Amino acid sequence: MARNTQVHADLNAPPITSLLAEYIVKHPSRGWGDEVEHEAHRTFMNWLGCAIGAAHHEAAQAALQAIQVLEPSAQASILGRKEKVDIGSAALINGITSHTFDFDDTHLKTIIHPAGPVCSALVALAEHTGASGRQLIDALVIGIDVSCRAGNMMYPDHYDRGWHITGTTGVLGSAAACARLLGLNVEQTIMALGIAASQPIGLREQFGTMTKPFHPGAAAQAGLMSALLARAGFTSSRRALEAPRGFAQVVSEKHDWNEITDELGKRFEISFNAYKPFACGIVIHPSIDACVQLRAKGVTPDNLLRIDLKVHSLVLELTGKKEPADGLQGKFSVYHGCAAGLIFGQASEHEYADSIVTRPDVVDVRRKVVATVDNNINEASVDAVATLKDGNTVHVYVEHAIGSLQHPMTDLDLEKKFRGMSDEIIGAEQTGQLLAECWNLAAAPNVKRLVELSRP
Amino acid sequence: MARNTQVHADLNAPPITSLLAEYIVKHPSRGWGDEVEHEAHRTFMNWLGCAIGAAHHEAAQAALQAIQVLEPSAQASILGRKEKVDIGSAALINGITSHTFDFDDTHLKTIIHPAGPVCSALVALAEHTGASGRQLIDALVIGIDVSCRAGNMMYPDHYDRGWHITGTTGVLGSAAACARLLGLNVEQTIMALGIAASQPIGLREQFGTMTKPFHPGAAAQAGLMSALLARAGFTSSRRALEAPRGFAQVVSEKHDWNEITDELGKRFEISFNAYKPFACGIVIHPSIDACVQLRAKGVTPDNLLRIDLKVHSLVLELTGKKEPADGLQGKFSVYHGCAAGLIFGQASEHEYADSIVTRPDVVDVRRKVVATVDNNINEASVDAVATLKDGNTVHVYVEHAIGSLQHPMTDLDLEKKFRGMSDEIIGAEQTGQLLAECWNLAAAPNVKRLVELSRP
Repeated sequence: MARNTQVHADLNAPPITSLLAEYIVKHPSRGWGDEVEHEAHRTFMNWLGCAIGAAHHEAAQAALQAIQVLEPSAQASILGRKEKVDIGSAALINGITSHTFDFDDTHLKTIIHPAGPVCSALVALAEHTGASGRQLIDALVIGIDVSCRAGNMMYPDHYDRGWHITGTTGVLGSAAACARLLGLNVEQTIMALGIAASQPIGLREQFGTMTKPFHPGAAAQAGLMSALLARAGFTSSRRALEAPRGFAQVVSEKHDWNEITDELGKRFEISFNAYKPFACGIVIHPSIDACVQLRAKGVTPDNLLRIDLKVHSLVLELTGKKEPADGLQGKFSVYHGCAAGLIFGQASEHEYADSIVTRPDVVDVRRKVVATVDNNINEASVDAVATLKDGNTVHVYVEHAIGSLQHPMTDLDLEKKFRGMSDEIIGAEQTGQLLAECWNLAAAPNVKRLVELSRP
Repeated sequence: MARNTQVHADLNAPPITSLLAEYIVKHPSRGWGDEVEHEAHRTFMNWLGCAIGAAHHEAAQAALQAIQVLEPSAQASILGRKEKVDIGSAALINGITSHTFDFDDTHLKTIIHPAGPVCSALVALAEHTGASGRQLIDALVIGIDVSCRAGNMMYPDHYDRGWHITGTTGVLGSAAACARLLGLNVEQTIMALGIAASQPIGLREQFGTMTKPFHPGAAAQAGLMSALLARAGFTSSRRALEAPRGFAQVVSEKHDWNEITDELGKRFEISFNAYKPFACGIVIHPSIDACVQLRAKGVTPDNLLRIDLKVHSLVLELTGKKEPADGLQGKFSVYHGCAAGLIFGQASEHEYADSIVTRPDVVDVRRKVVATVDNNINEASVDAVATLKDGNTVHVYVEHAIGSLQHPMTDLDLEKKFRGMSDEIIGAEQTGQLLAECWNLAAAPNVKRLVELSRP
């Protein structure tokens, strides 16, 4: 029998589960402006490139090996691979691969990576049902809106207490998106959100292991199954998100209900989605950006004497590793990031290969980088001065790095990033066709061609 | 990048993930006394009867319908049904059915229902791998030990804040049991527990909906998949249970690490498992037991004038419904429970059918029951006096109801309960064979015969 003690219970929460379900079901197709529509395509494309790029990573191999024990039916594609598995397993694996490089999108207000859970579930489901591109984009915008609004409601407390917010809110986003794609009614959608609410996935303790990218994958799968269960008549609480012993009050002390309802259907959280130009933590991005700019101004490994960076204190706290021994350690080294930016003009997953991080000329450049904390520099900025061997200096000040909301990656930047991950998996020519298909997704009568192009 | 604030973080937790893994892998087969061995069989049998009994409940129907969308391979049996599905889905559905009647086992210290997640995963896996009964019983005892010890570590805080503890600890129990059955090594078992730790399933807000029994089902499936992933090389934190942003510290303020380690391998939590004789909340059990005893002493609907009960205050708080309108409401009516006990001598799922709750002779008896709160009566007890039409009285005092640890159901009681659920699904003759197979499980070279007998 039930115990009745609960501290801090809010008994007067608004019915956000029902309000979200109404929105998910009834918001008009393409019920937003051109910018939101375009951002949806950018989000989708960025997610797809990441998923294809990591398709043969050892995390994907291990997950596929485990799933094959279940002898799944060949319903849906694993992006970047030839195998097909059932739609639930495809959602899981594509969600894992899309987050494996830590190179996917970021809703900066909550540091949720929203595309992983939502797109991984949607593409698997859409491939199976033969949904149109329009249906997929509608469900994508709404699903991401649901997960990011749930994040806004609980961030930062929820994250601070140790939850990996991408997975925990991702289950809701995936369930919402799949409910929309399946055409569930309001009551079924309430149930889908409710079933999903019982499955918050993801602990921050897992960072640095394969279980980190497992979180968006498992969230995608759980959300998809929640929608399928609801369609089949499975029931849940109608107040699973807001009740005293429901989702928000159990996993967070902070629950600003208005974050769910404010401007619902008018403001879309996908508008605040950003894309990483560099395959490492955002805190180093201004420094790498500065070094890419120095390179463009003629600074080379040969003419360089030293680079002096003035940085925010977090840069050295989180990424102060001076002599990284391998690719993973390289991700926590502002010095290596700068060397990559100066030598290669980029810092994609390739520049974090073990062989690059230990290459003598790269090591040589990183040892020329001197980073000093300057309290006048904020987290988004960096001041960089290159001193050349001839005594000249070159100065670059980055207020907002490439990839920030203030200085977003262009569509061309995103295509280049995509090619860096996709060309070697499916070939450059097919990548070109796939990019065209991505930009035209909303007009596609069926997503099957896009999925076919995503396989080698 | 990571924020660094967390309140109350315990940085000095012992390495319980590793300690549990050592235990799971290395504890000897049948490394316990006869009583534990016997209790394992009782737990298994009670779980199996519940799963068979609810095989055609609408929750099972809906879950199966959703899973069939994935076109699963026919690897493992749905107990009490003819269909087969993949092992993950079988774990899910059998976990759902085993908890649908709320008639399964209870670890009274934590009110965990431990068999659902553990046995549902194990039987699906064992059927597929052809494991022996000995291997299954070993894994069962150890899996239940892991989930209940995790519960002891966190109860009551974890439960009070709204988690359905059966699901949240069940994922760990299922992962532990499957790791044992699969013969994972210590390192793989650490990973399996870690992957499972990222998936705490279950909110108390779901009580009264199908998502309540979904919790042990989903826990069974998630634990099974965690073990399969670990075997395939998938990685997780080695400190996923105890780290500051690991499982215990994220989902509970209370984390008594010693509950994991005290007498590990010597005391087995399955020893504290109990079985419900009546298909309703434990708080009414003393009252029903008293009425069953009055019946045995010759009290009948015909000679009865009234029954006076002295009860603990919780009985009326939680189950004070005087005129229940259907079966579900009947579960919250001490009056109906007493009528069932007096008329039928039992209160199984049958006596909570809508047609029984509304039957005139049943209504008539329940209206003769008068329950009064008495502060001298504790929660486990009841004092009942039946006044007959001839003026005589019959007195029964129940200190501990049948089904309590102090007054456990006998093996025969369990068999009768099993038959009440199984006879009509697979027939009385086959039920007899199945019961024999259950008692002999540890000696079975293969669990396949038992599983075959569990299907119609």
